[in-house]
Amino acid sequence: MSNEIFIFELFNKYRMQLPTFSDIQSAHNRISPFVHRTMVLTSGSLNEIFNCNIFFKCENFQKVGAFKFRGASNAVLNLSDEKAMKGVATHSSGNHAAALALAARNRGIKAYVVMPDNAPDIKKKAVEGYGAEITFCKPTLEARESTLAKVIEQTGATQIHPYNNFDVISGQGTAVKELIEDYGSFDLILCPVGGGGLLAGTSIATKNLLPGTKVIACEPVGADDAFRSFYNSEIIPSVNPNTIADGLLTSLGILNFEIIKSKTDQIVTVSDQSIIMAMRMIWERMKIIVEPSSAVPLAAIIENKIDVKNKKTGIILSGGNVDLNKISNYF
Amino acid sequence: MSNEIFIFELFNKYRMQLPTFSDIQSAHNRISPFVHRTMVLTSGSLNEIFNCNIFFKCENFQKVGAFKFRGASNAVLNLSDEKAMKGVATHSSGNHAAALALAARNRGIKAYVVMPDNAPDIKKKAVEGYGAEITFCKPTLEARESTLAKVIEQTGATQIHPYNNFDVISGQGTAVKELIEDYGSFDLILCPVGGGGLLAGTSIATKNLLPGTKVIACEPVGADDAFRSFYNSEIIPSVNPNTIADGLLTSLGILNFEIIKSKTDQIVTVSDQSIIMAMRMIWERMKIIVEPSSAVPLAAIIENKIDVKNKKTGIILSGGNVDLNKISNYF
Repeated sequence: MSNEIFIFELFNKYRMQLPTFSDIQSAHNRISPFVHRTMVLTSGSLNEIFNCNIFFKCENFQKVGAFKFRGASNAVLNLSDEKAMKGVATHSSGNHAAALALAARNRGIKAYVVMPDNAPDIKKKAVEGYGAEITFCKPTLEARESTLAKVIEQTGATQIHPYNNFDVISGQGTAVKELIEDYGSFDLILCPVGGGGLLAGTSIATKNLLPGTKVIACEPVGADDAFRSFYNSEIIPSVNPNTIADGLLTSLGILNFEIIKSKTDQIVTVSDQSIIMAMRMIWERMKIIVEPSSAVPLAAIIENKIDVKNKKTGIILSGGNVDLNKISNYF
Repeated sequence: MSNEIFIFELFNKYRMQLPTFSDIQSAHNRISPFVHRTMVLTSGSLNEIFNCNIFFKCENFQKVGAFKFRGASNAVLNLSDEKAMKGVATHSSGNHAAALALAARNRGIKAYVVMPDNAPDIKKKAVEGYGAEITFCKPTLEARESTLAKVIEQTGATQIHPYNNFDVISGQGTAVKELIEDYGSFDLILCPVGGGGLLAGTSIATKNLLPGTKVIACEPVGADDAFRSFYNSEIIPSVNPNTIADGLLTSLGILNFEIIKSKTDQIVTVSDQSIIMAMRMIWERMKIIVEPSSAVPLAAIIENKIDVKNKKTGIILSGGNVDLNKISNYF
């Protein structure tokens, strides 16, 4: 099959096969033995300050410290034995790499991770610690993609994209499913958006379980491609995104955009200054560590971009992987 | 009654009236509507590293961010209406001041707090935020005590000592009571020791519920008065204590020592370096904020002072109030 036909077929497959809530249910059954059903926290003082009722779904307590483990686990567990035997591969220097490495180890298969050679030591060690095989490359998207293609050619491994992937999206939708199962109805569900894996899964699950609930995505203004894409009805990728929320630098995936277009109600943007303020509020008042990306929805509340007054609001705290050596950048 | 006779009677009362488990049970019934039944966390990666099975009782999630709210609430709620009417008083610049202020507000009575005039703004604001009346004094123990005596003379308020107090000790014992109720038997219970309120209450409750369980107190080597007092069988107060664990600078109280002598099995000391290492491990791996004092038991495990191998171990994480502006002191 030529590359062009392959891409065309893939595109058609994408167009036709978007995950539905039943895929999220299947994902949940599949991954439940492996992922934490993370706790939900509330904060009296934050509720008082903002005159609202917020439930924080703590994916910072998820394995590998981020919701990414849900999607990666679902993608790995849903491979046929034949495919799984050859392993899985991705290029990433972030939470997805660690998530895929652990998910692969749990199934007893190999994970191949392509990483830029300037990735922080702490990230290299985490991925190595889960037993993945790392291939280093130059720190450009081109080098990452060509190196990954080579690795896949040599190994026959299946590529698991960090967000533009049917099974990954289905897995990410399980976080809000748990939140709603455990805490009932909500007026608003807020989550950050980067590539759109979490947002797409969250939107599908919420709109199925609670059709009247508004799903609002929150994005740093320095990486606002989802905002611009959403309101222009076409994908407008980020050019030189710049934000302290390092988990949200990526641009929306095709699959993700298709879902978000119809299932997400609104996207709002916030400044890095508000993100840092929100992160500090969560650290100080809730006594939990969240990474900057997790603080983006609360930043939108601080900026009055979302009216939460007297509303029951669910927020997905996406992860807690912060490099404490760089903490002086934040506070 | 002359002062001397008063002190003699007080001493005898202390000698004869140490809290028992039934006082902790009463305290628990009394404070339950006001305090959080805090969650218990485990960490797969810490258990793997230390080859053990640790359950962390998260008092950093307690109201005002520390276990101190248990003891203060019990002391305030156990006052007669007549006494309560006149309010409560203490000198403190730490967690006890905030705890007493909130406990008083909950009962609708006044709290008078004497604070050194160089106390950090963040602490002043916290105590004011709970509605206490602050009297500032010079930053010496003498000035604190004489100022407090004056406040009490003027107001008729009841002094609530932060740890050398029957009701405070009974209240602090409720944390480990919850841990044991929720998670059953333990081989070891570890907690930090400063003035000894938490340790005394923890020892009474543990020895009653699980007579075979060892209670081990953990103390910074720079403030090791409990260690020296325990092994010399007499109170040896700290002189110029110096440790990063700022909650543990105080010396053992008389009541606390009486209890600890007979109910605590062992006291170990640890370096500030290990405390910082332990604190960082908890932040990074468990994604929760704890103050340095809370990290002292894990520091003892890091230093191999306690053999936790294959043992089911409970640790009271005492609090989570860290000044993020000073975080560069830690990491």
